[in-house]
Amino acid sequence: MYRTHNCGQLRIENVGSNVVLSGWVQGSNDLGHMMYTNLRDRYGITQLIFSKEKTSQDLFDKARTLGREFVVKATGKVIERHSKNPKIPTGDIEIEVTELEILNESKTPPFTIDNETDGGDDLRMTYRYLDLRRKPVQNNIIFRSKLSLETRIYLNSQNFVEVETPFLIKSTPEGARDFVVPSRMNKGQFYALPQSPQTFKQLLMISGLDRYFQIVKCFRDEDLRADRQPEFTQIDCEMSYVTQEDILNTFEGLTKHLFKTTLDVELEDFPRMTYDDAMRLYGSDKPDTRFGMQFVELNDVAKGTGFPVFDNAEIVVGICAEGQAGNFSNKDIKKLTEWMQRPQIGAKGLVYVKVEAGGTFKSPVGKFFSDEVLQTWADKFGAKEGDMILVLSGEDEKTRKQLNELRLEMGNRMGLRDPKKFSPLWVVDFPLLEWDEDSERFHAMHHPFTSPKKADMERMLNGDHETMKSLRADAYDLVINGVEIGGGSVRIHDRDLQSKNFDLLGFTKEEAEAQFGFLLGAFEYGAPPHGGIAFGFDRLCAVLNGVNSIRDFIAFPKNNQGRDMMIDAPSPIDETQLDELGIEMAKEEVE
Amino acid sequence: MYRTHNCGQLRIENVGSNVVLSGWVQGSNDLGHMMYTNLRDRYGITQLIFSKEKTSQDLFDKARTLGREFVVKATGKVIERHSKNPKIPTGDIEIEVTELEILNESKTPPFTIDNETDGGDDLRMTYRYLDLRRKPVQNNIIFRSKLSLETRIYLNSQNFVEVETPFLIKSTPEGARDFVVPSRMNKGQFYALPQSPQTFKQLLMISGLDRYFQIVKCFRDEDLRADRQPEFTQIDCEMSYVTQEDILNTFEGLTKHLFKTTLDVELEDFPRMTYDDAMRLYGSDKPDTRFGMQFVELNDVAKGTGFPVFDNAEIVVGICAEGQAGNFSNKDIKKLTEWMQRPQIGAKGLVYVKVEAGGTFKSPVGKFFSDEVLQTWADKFGAKEGDMILVLSGEDEKTRKQLNELRLEMGNRMGLRDPKKFSPLWVVDFPLLEWDEDSERFHAMHHPFTSPKKADMERMLNGDHETMKSLRADAYDLVINGVEIGGGSVRIHDRDLQSKNFDLLGFTKEEAEAQFGFLLGAFEYGAPPHGGIAFGFDRLCAVLNGVNSIRDFIAFPKNNQGRDMMIDAPSPIDETQLDELGIEMAKEEVE
Repeated sequence: MYRTHNCGQLRIENVGSNVVLSGWVQGSNDLGHMMYTNLRDRYGITQLIFSKEKTSQDLFDKARTLGREFVVKATGKVIERHSKNPKIPTGDIEIEVTELEILNESKTPPFTIDNETDGGDDLRMTYRYLDLRRKPVQNNIIFRSKLSLETRIYLNSQNFVEVETPFLIKSTPEGARDFVVPSRMNKGQFYALPQSPQTFKQLLMISGLDRYFQIVKCFRDEDLRADRQPEFTQIDCEMSYVTQEDILNTFEGLTKHLFKTTLDVELEDFPRMTYDDAMRLYGSDKPDTRFGMQFVELNDVAKGTGFPVFDNAEIVVGICAEGQAGNFSNKDIKKLTEWMQRPQIGAKGLVYVKVEAGGTFKSPVGKFFSDEVLQTWADKFGAKEGDMILVLSGEDEKTRKQLNELRLEMGNRMGLRDPKKFSPLWVVDFPLLEWDEDSERFHAMHHPFTSPKKADMERMLNGDHETMKSLRADAYDLVINGVEIGGGSVRIHDRDLQSKNFDLLGFTKEEAEAQFGFLLGAFEYGAPPHGGIAFGFDRLCAVLNGVNSIRDFIAFPKNNQGRDMMIDAPSPIDETQLDELGIEMAKEEVE
Repeated sequence: MYRTHNCGQLRIENVGSNVVLSGWVQGSNDLGHMMYTNLRDRYGITQLIFSKEKTSQDLFDKARTLGREFVVKATGKVIERHSKNPKIPTGDIEIEVTELEILNESKTPPFTIDNETDGGDDLRMTYRYLDLRRKPVQNNIIFRSKLSLETRIYLNSQNFVEVETPFLIKSTPEGARDFVVPSRMNKGQFYALPQSPQTFKQLLMISGLDRYFQIVKCFRDEDLRADRQPEFTQIDCEMSYVTQEDILNTFEGLTKHLFKTTLDVELEDFPRMTYDDAMRLYGSDKPDTRFGMQFVELNDVAKGTGFPVFDNAEIVVGICAEGQAGNFSNKDIKKLTEWMQRPQIGAKGLVYVKVEAGGTFKSPVGKFFSDEVLQTWADKFGAKEGDMILVLSGEDEKTRKQLNELRLEMGNRMGLRDPKKFSPLWVVDFPLLEWDEDSERFHAMHHPFTSPKKADMERMLNGDHETMKSLRADAYDLVINGVEIGGGSVRIHDRDLQSKNFDLLGFTKEEAEAQFGFLLGAFEYGAPPHGGIAFGFDRLCAVLNGVNSIRDFIAFPKNNQGRDMMIDAPSPIDETQLDELGIEMAKEEVE
């Protein structure tokens, strides 16, 4: 037997018991006549004590050989500590060791196995199995496990059936790039790994399964940005005989359950906002609503007074930073302006108006606008003495995006984005289609199976090109703290409407048939009304913990080049493997 | 709103309520003045009634257009039936329909959507979404969902953490063939899909995660036999600081929990049998212990009497089929002998001895053996009047395998393999290594990370070639009703022992380093003693339901050519996709 208790379990009431513990040596403190060793496992740390007086010389000598991360089994008696450690749950006791077995030795780890570590990112990823010994990393992985269990328990309680859909499916050039898998038994043909189980979950609705979910890996072969992974996890869900309202309520219920059971946080009912309002008030379809600072348009009071920048702008729009007038020196504002002018944001400039005592204002554009006019600005924002109004101008869409960045940055600086505060929001009524100027075609805003709103169906079937741009969909996102946690839609369940949609998206009849023929066919055999949602599970973990990086919640993540540094994958394969698959590497072209 | 109730919900106490139901039309019965329509969903069937008297002509006419599998929404009042149907839970009531909306029409399905269907295998697979509408198929998928939830609930209650391990990993030529995934960002290199998360779960133990599990897809590119799938699901588990005994007890607990919660079956404690005993008594490492009919060796009483077939055989061994003497005519026995002589089994012949009244025997080998000798045979089997002894002879291993087939066949014919009876068994003490005559090398009986038994470690490090064949491992299988449900082992956690094992398995130092360097490296940083098990989840579903085919429990299975008939995958991909990946199809060689 390796242990009677784990290293986080023993308390003052266990004093006098004989116990066996196993774990890793966190570190030792050798006082010459006495030695203390901290033994660690997943559950905690317990102190072992070896004293020259009471211990055999052999045992004492052996204890002295213990290095960091050695694996040992210690047998002994629980005694009360002289100097207790109130910081850890086992701090009242220690183990007077009578037998010590070294189960395995350890080389000195390449970085410190502690809450804070000296290991850089690459080093920690190469030795991820050691990084995972660190308590904060381990806690993340355990949190994730709990979150997935609670998801399953809740959805099962709501009659959802978890169905595993296949991983070896068919490549569809639409959407992101697929990872493909050459077939040995069907030479010249390939499977693709799923970007999502979208079509399968719709087929399950056509099967009558009614309420489906799956916590499932999905794959996208994209150039990886900072916080993307080629494989990621979704909570994927679909329901039949439901309206958008039913779906929102069901998954609001799930989200509340998850917050309650993992964080003991009770969320209020989630507010809803249309996509148009989100863009108008926040310049983003995923606004961080932990704080206000909504956009206010100034066209009617800022244009036509001879300030050419505003006069020539499509829009003049700003935010009001409460109480910040005194916190921003001219130099600070210059720096903030430069920050806005970086290519990542691309603002041309930034105009401020500080509200000062007695109805006066301080602003670099003061000569173009009288205090009376500036007072009308202040009134629009509800700004009062000490507040600072920040104004951008230019082309509508671009300017709103820039102002969104500024708002978030001001939120950060003003401490308004508390990671312990949670502000969920349903963003609804997304446009159905997005016109892409470059490719001169429509793209699906959500995906090609999304249904227009009932009121827009007729217009979709019979409208002209301009009409298509105005179609609204039964599509929705769940946003928490400015992060998109999930998104979904009611689906089209009518073959004609689906064909029309493929048509608008630029599919020829043949392409639609080749890629989605099985789904279009299925629509002809009694497809029920249905819709669903998918949550980014990695991101949900991160948001619940108030952190940004999803990598912290993935046991074995890949780096930005899609490499697993620990196992060194991908890697070359044998010629014989290639032969069996009937493929060969393309020759490098001579330039 | 699409429904107030589902189609399996309404009872006599709901009479008088106004309700809305949605579902599929199972079928209609048109009596001219009256029409009955069965409406079906996942939860059941409810009868709708349209009567010419009470219904508007429009509604009545619309009802008459309903075809099989139309999707409708019906509003109406619950009334008591005149002629009740005790076979269904809703059989006391029907719905007097006042409004009817056809949500979607349906073409006539290509096969009958009913418990028994007229659709052949290929047709049902091509229209799997319709096949899944059939109750027995749907029930299997729902059962699977419940089984996975209960697995998670139990393992979580035992402190197991579910950790997702990566799908894009590294190819290892050892074991079965990998599916590979070309990397676009790392041209010329490939990921592999995991055959199991074996190395990752061991690394998680080295990480200190202590108790890991995962219900996870695994992939093997093998030529598919009848009941194999290229992608299949495992319950994958690993524990630290445990002995084989701890592992067996933990997963016996899991298995009992699953039987209890899904079938309400209480299993007794599982018996254990060594691999050697299983081979000796059943000629199989996965004996069906629902019935006895154990092997009895006859060498001492059957050889040396001048019957050349036995005299020249390495072994003479048989089984006793209780009470079967009267059930097998000479013709039956001839047929049974021919069945045994088919190439799949390959027996040379089959000797029977029928025990008749008054200590006499009937047997074709009677002239070689006196009744007195045959009585000693009968005594060994405990055979009595009316029993039939069946005897095979030949080379030891081969003959036992053949006799295993005969035993199972007799079990079938005698009705001893009741699918509602469950007989679990731990088979333990598997050999560590298997000598392969063809390749002249050892293979790992379980896998290359399996630990020899503690008593055999010294012999493994220092023994000669013959010694290696006799090494026993801490490896075990869970067998239920003759089906291997799971298997696992205690792992090596010492780098030297692991190196020795790779050595015996024919890996050069360089190969071992290239393929498993990260694991060998990890062993040097404090690997704890650990071990685990993996259950075949698809098979577990099948065994619990007393059926053989795992395909019945997979929502979208592939056929024997690895094809998904419904979505028609695998399929050719675009040239541009190949270009991006830097691969091309090999030219067909001219013969």
